Amino acid sequence: MFYIAIDILGTIAFAISGVLVAMEKRLDLFGVVIIAFVTSIGGGTLRDLLIGNTPVVWMRDSTYVITILVSVILAILFVKQLKYFRKSLFLFDTIGLGLFTLVGVEKGLEAGLLPVMCIALGTITASFGGVIRDILCNEIPVIFRKEIYATPCILGALSFFLLEQLPIVDAYAFAGGILVVIGLRLLAVKFDIRLPNIYRK
Amino acid sequence: MFYIAIDILGTIAFAISGVLVAMEKRLDLFGVVIIAFVTSIGGGTLRDLLIGNTPVVWMRDSTYVITILVSVILAILFVKQLKYFRKSLFLFDTIGLGLFTLVGVEKGLEAGLLPVMCIALGTITASFGGVIRDILCNEIPVIFRKEIYATPCILGALSFFLLEQLPIVDAYAFAGGILVVIGLRLLAVKFDIRLPNIYRK
Amino acid sequence: MFYIAIDILGTIAFAISGVLVAMEKRLDLFGVVIIAFVTSIGGGTLRDLLIGNTPVVWMRDSTYVITILVSVILAILFVKQLKYFRKSLFLFDTIGLGLFTLVGVEKGLEAGLLPVMCIALGTITASFGGVIRDILCNEIPVIFRKEIYATPCILGALSFFLLEQLPIVDAYAFAGGILVVIGLRLLAVKFDIRLPNIYRK
Repeated sequence: MFYIAIDILGTIAFAISGVLVAMEKRLDLFGVVIIAFVTSIGGGTLRDLLIGNTPVVWMRDSTYVITILVSVILAILFVKQLKYFRKSLFLFDTIGLGLFTLVGVEKGLEAGLLPVMCIALGTITASFGGVIRDILCNEIPVIFRKEIYATPCILGALSFFLLEQLPIVDAYAFAGGILVVIGLRLLAVKFDIRLPNIYRK
Repeated sequence: MFYIAIDILGTIAFAISGVLVAMEKRLDLFGVVIIAFVTSIGGGTLRDLLIGNTPVVWMRDSTYVITILVSVILAILFVKQLKYFRKSLFLFDTIGLGLFTLVGVEKGLEAGLLPVMCIALGTITASFGGVIRDILCNEIPVIFRKEIYATPCILGALSFFLLEQLPIVDAYAFAGGILVVIGLRLLAVKFDIRLPNIYRK
Repeated sequence: MFYIAIDILGTIAFAISGVLVAMEKRLDLFGVVIIAFVTSIGGGTLRDLLIGNTPVVWMRDSTYVITILVSVILAILFVKQLKYFRKSLFLFDTIGLGLFTLVGVEKGLEAGLLPVMCIALGTITASFGGVIRDILCNEIPVIFRKEIYATPCILGALSFFLLEQLPIVDAYAFAGGILVVIGLRLLAVKFDIRLPNIYRK
């Protein structure tokens, strides 16, 4: 129940973030809807394609499509009010990031992949929706340039495999991984932490 | 027979539209060929990947590759004459749009998907070749910005499911869906109908 | 043994070429790593998706991921020294191009595809990593614009099928195809050969 609620919250947050980016680019109604979809389900779709889990998940379960459509309609109607919820949106987005990462890890385990591949899958699930959104909007993906976004996913997924070594049930390791992603993302934004500059002047 | 003729016409029209866009961008010969391919088979390829129908259809049936190659050669040789056929090209493109939409719907039904997913698949089949073409040419996809292109696909695919409820054979519902796509597209262009402006000033 | 050594060299060369492009775009550390991955395994990934060979190859064999990570670290540390190895890099890249082309052809044969599709698969394997890299970096893919890059792949893959008709073992036809790719690429660059200009002034 809790799991589903968070999954839905993440889907909503990602969809709304897509609407905001698409409206900034002044796309038409169809463009806004598509960008919202892509932001929300793009990462999971790429993950499903890479491991051959087809038809991809949103085609088999209409919850995602319905959730996204409703979110888009509400976001367009209340776009002015949305700015008052910036902090909540960021929180949803971050929670979604944590959950989507661990969902990706889980799918990798189910497919019998090595831990390092599961970590990659988790990161792809959580962050590539935004990458595809930026490509469709003709931008260099923002996560390649300035935001700490994927690093918490990688470290959170890694934590899961470390926690799993302890004598605890898997659900705790799963929850621990989610919390690491969320915690690191919040800390990175609060203290404006960035990846080390690899360009020596 | 009729079905195949239309499928080929659609493939040709989409390939030629790819050649024209690629030449405008002054790509080299290889670039022009690839853009023509992608415009023509990109939507069907994405559809096949999403439902796990692999190898994708153009890899199993060489008709597509041969048709596209011949179209590209002719389009490059007669590029100057092409402008006199602008109206015919637009008509082929529109017919292709209608047919590709319903082909996508059919593939979704075969894969046991819900109607809403079949509608999405049909729209993807018909319109995402153009999206991939625009991404490769470093443009924001035109269908996200100003053209009514995907909306007729969605409504035509929807019509199929409504018509299917009537006591008629499936072939009629299929044909009806195609005609709705074509009709709406022609009307939209003739009367310059656009999606509602979601940006209040 | 020889086969594996070349495969690794190709992977390294493609990864390094990705690092150089990403650093020119001033992406952050994560961006550089992702672009290196995509350049190196993007073509093989698209090939595996198109023929339904999933999970894609780099997810099942960690050699690729490890090789790329080590290459990226070394490339970033020794980025200044890299320019003295420009010629060696170009050679690795060209060898990689030859090998990846024929690996793609082989996978197509295993999937029971027609020769023309195997040639397409080989070309995709060798050249689409670079295409995806350029899309992610918001450039029109360089191979569509000015470099002879894909043509040697096409002709090399074609040579394989011609050589295969001769009464020789398949390994020789395979090696012959690789050499044709490498030879044509070297000749094209040495004599600055380009695709014919299709734009009459």
